[in-house]
Amino acid sequence: MSGPTAVELIERKKRGGELTPDELRGFLAGYVSGAIPDYQVASWLMAVCWRGMTGPETLALTEAMVESGETLDWPEITRPTVDKHSTGGVGDKTSVVLVPLMAAAGAAFVKMSGRGLGHTGGTLDKLESIPGFQCELPLDEMRAQVARIGAALVGQSGDLVPADKKLYALRDVTGTVDSIPLIAGSIMSKKLAGGARSIVLDVKWGSGAFMQTLEEARVLAETLVRIGEGAGRRTRAVLSGMRQPLGRAVGNALEIREAIDTLRGGGPADLWALTLELGSQLLELSGLAPDAATARARLTELRDSGAGSRVLEQLIEAQHGDPRVVNDPALLPSAPVVLPFAADAEGWVATADARGIGDAALALGAGRRTKADPVDPAVGIVVRARIGDRVSAGQPLADVHARTEAEAQAAMDRLRAAFQLSASEIAAADDAYETVG
Amino acid sequence: MSGPTAVELIERKKRGGELTPDELRGFLAGYVSGAIPDYQVASWLMAVCWRGMTGPETLALTEAMVESGETLDWPEITRPTVDKHSTGGVGDKTSVVLVPLMAAAGAAFVKMSGRGLGHTGGTLDKLESIPGFQCELPLDEMRAQVARIGAALVGQSGDLVPADKKLYALRDVTGTVDSIPLIAGSIMSKKLAGGARSIVLDVKWGSGAFMQTLEEARVLAETLVRIGEGAGRRTRAVLSGMRQPLGRAVGNALEIREAIDTLRGGGPADLWALTLELGSQLLELSGLAPDAATARARLTELRDSGAGSRVLEQLIEAQHGDPRVVNDPALLPSAPVVLPFAADAEGWVATADARGIGDAALALGAGRRTKADPVDPAVGIVVRARIGDRVSAGQPLADVHARTEAEAQAAMDRLRAAFQLSASEIAAADDAYETVG
Repeated sequence: MSGPTAVELIERKKRGGELTPDELRGFLAGYVSGAIPDYQVASWLMAVCWRGMTGPETLALTEAMVESGETLDWPEITRPTVDKHSTGGVGDKTSVVLVPLMAAAGAAFVKMSGRGLGHTGGTLDKLESIPGFQCELPLDEMRAQVARIGAALVGQSGDLVPADKKLYALRDVTGTVDSIPLIAGSIMSKKLAGGARSIVLDVKWGSGAFMQTLEEARVLAETLVRIGEGAGRRTRAVLSGMRQPLGRAVGNALEIREAIDTLRGGGPADLWALTLELGSQLLELSGLAPDAATARARLTELRDSGAGSRVLEQLIEAQHGDPRVVNDPALLPSAPVVLPFAADAEGWVATADARGIGDAALALGAGRRTKADPVDPAVGIVVRARIGDRVSAGQPLADVHARTEAEAQAAMDRLRAAFQLSASEIAAADDAYETVG
Repeated sequence: MSGPTAVELIERKKRGGELTPDELRGFLAGYVSGAIPDYQVASWLMAVCWRGMTGPETLALTEAMVESGETLDWPEITRPTVDKHSTGGVGDKTSVVLVPLMAAAGAAFVKMSGRGLGHTGGTLDKLESIPGFQCELPLDEMRAQVARIGAALVGQSGDLVPADKKLYALRDVTGTVDSIPLIAGSIMSKKLAGGARSIVLDVKWGSGAFMQTLEEARVLAETLVRIGEGAGRRTRAVLSGMRQPLGRAVGNALEIREAIDTLRGGGPADLWALTLELGSQLLELSGLAPDAATARARLTELRDSGAGSRVLEQLIEAQHGDPRVVNDPALLPSAPVVLPFAADAEGWVATADARGIGDAALALGAGRRTKADPVDPAVGIVVRARIGDRVSAGQPLADVHARTEAEAQAAMDRLRAAFQLSASEIAAADDAYETVG
């Protein structure tokens, strides 16, 4: 007896029914092999946007995506393996702080990142602002580095989860990107294939995030955690606000500089707070700390002792970059023009819109509109005022780091729309974290 | 300024928004030209299944489909042009009765039919059971025939509505067939391209029809009428029940014989009643009769005078068939084995399930499972008992016309499931017609 046809599976989902794990596996395998054509997968994707997927369906799809390619495991690594994913936001350089610190705390942390499109480059582009830094390493070299120092910040291996690449490309052109189970499956398939046993997910919400509301972010977080747990990984999600940029720097070298500052005990409070939150979850999940309070104290101590920044130096050196940037950030590229963007009145900062500030950075050349665009490592925005701050007229709200004065002025037009001042007092937007899992 | 991209149109429909007539026209034209790929149309089709289409969208899609190919008009025809479409049912031979009768009443009626898959062949297959009958005529020959006798029963011209063929083929493999606006657009695009000014639609509901319930049929009927009226045609729909077969005969030559009987004043009451209903609507719509009562009297008179069957003779002769079948149905092919299917108990007929009886005819070879299947003109079922009839044990419920005794027995197994007897009295299922438009 052969199973149901592709059309029967599409129609079942269209009517709100459920596919079995075997059916989903067969459907996806058929797509990857070319036996099931794009147009059938496209109508199924839209039916999934319509009807959603059950927990077992989402898990089965994710596992089938993982099975479409190679998977990594780490038999030679005795440390607990950990991983982290952020759904993406403006100014998010957390991995650059978190990965060395977790390695200093005894974990093995291979952070694989993408480039993607966006307001700034991805984590890979940020790292490549360090002179000489290489994100693409031969697998054996990368494994030796992880065994030695417990950390790597690299690009995704070409053979992991090919089904995700193929499916994402189709979703992108068929209007089927914004489905929670499909988003969750895409994210988790890569985490599962990476092989780490403990996973923390930073699910952002707000104007600068993919999920605009806390409610949507919560549903995505629950779906992600259910997949991770269902696949036998210790998984938690942290919901974090993204109404204004994370930290102050938005731009590749500017963000690396801020990450280094933070790892050395300086840097903005919100970036350190998020690092501490994600890191303490991972230490607990992986058994490296008995509870959250111990974990937080441990991470703070590793920052203050310089253990974290020493791992970053080792990591940069292992990946062919210039490790002196850690002690001398002036070695990072810098922009020829730096102009302040000043408040035009006194008042309280009501919005410092993450998306708008990101757009300004993108306009300066910090990010990509299309895959072929080069990223300028030096340019970007440094935000100097956060929601709830009291500012006087003429006080700088941000610094614009640009290639030319004309580009700086163009960016300021965008900043003008991003910053709104209120004549009455505004509360700070320190959105509390919420943990799922 | 260029308009929205295909993805933007898909996403708008996905969110429940409306496309403008120009956008729909451009989308369909892009599909037909190959500029918009199958997979984008597939996800849009599923979004249409989800969100539906507004009246203006449905009309625009239909008109865009019409514009994709040639259209017919009839400048040389002085009679009012009429057309009819049935959504399909088991034993539906109405066109063979209605077309000659309407021509006798003064209309010009070019009925273009398909072959399709189904329990019995399409109208074309039924007609081809008449020795020599040709459904594919050169266009000038067909036009001359219509000018002379007012009637033709032919296959669809290859160049009408190519977009419908392409779109239907995609719907068939993407689980997007059962969307009311897409069904309505497909039906009406062909009627509009055919050029008739007055159109009646026979929308069937029940187990043997595509629409299972009266409610669904009503929505389809309203959508069809709105398109027709929107495109400037006088349009009405008649809802008719299809729980049991129409008339008694199910099978190609058997149905032609029954149609001839009906045109000559015999035949089953329900077939004549439906012919009268559809015909009187068309006479009214086209202005050939002032009201329904006059129209019905006129059609009955044309039947009783033999004017209708004389047009059928002329039509068969014009289309290269043997016109003597009208007076001597024994010239039609007949099956070598005819066996009665008898009631196994006494009681009232509770179901004479149209779909089940159609399946029995299909099993005998009367219809097609795949496009390549040949159709046997001689075989089929003649139903002898209708819902509500009182039958005694051993009384024939149907006759099975088969190629072999073994095939007849196999068909009887299906008939056993189709006929259910009740020990208590059951009312007749003479579903009243409902008119829309």
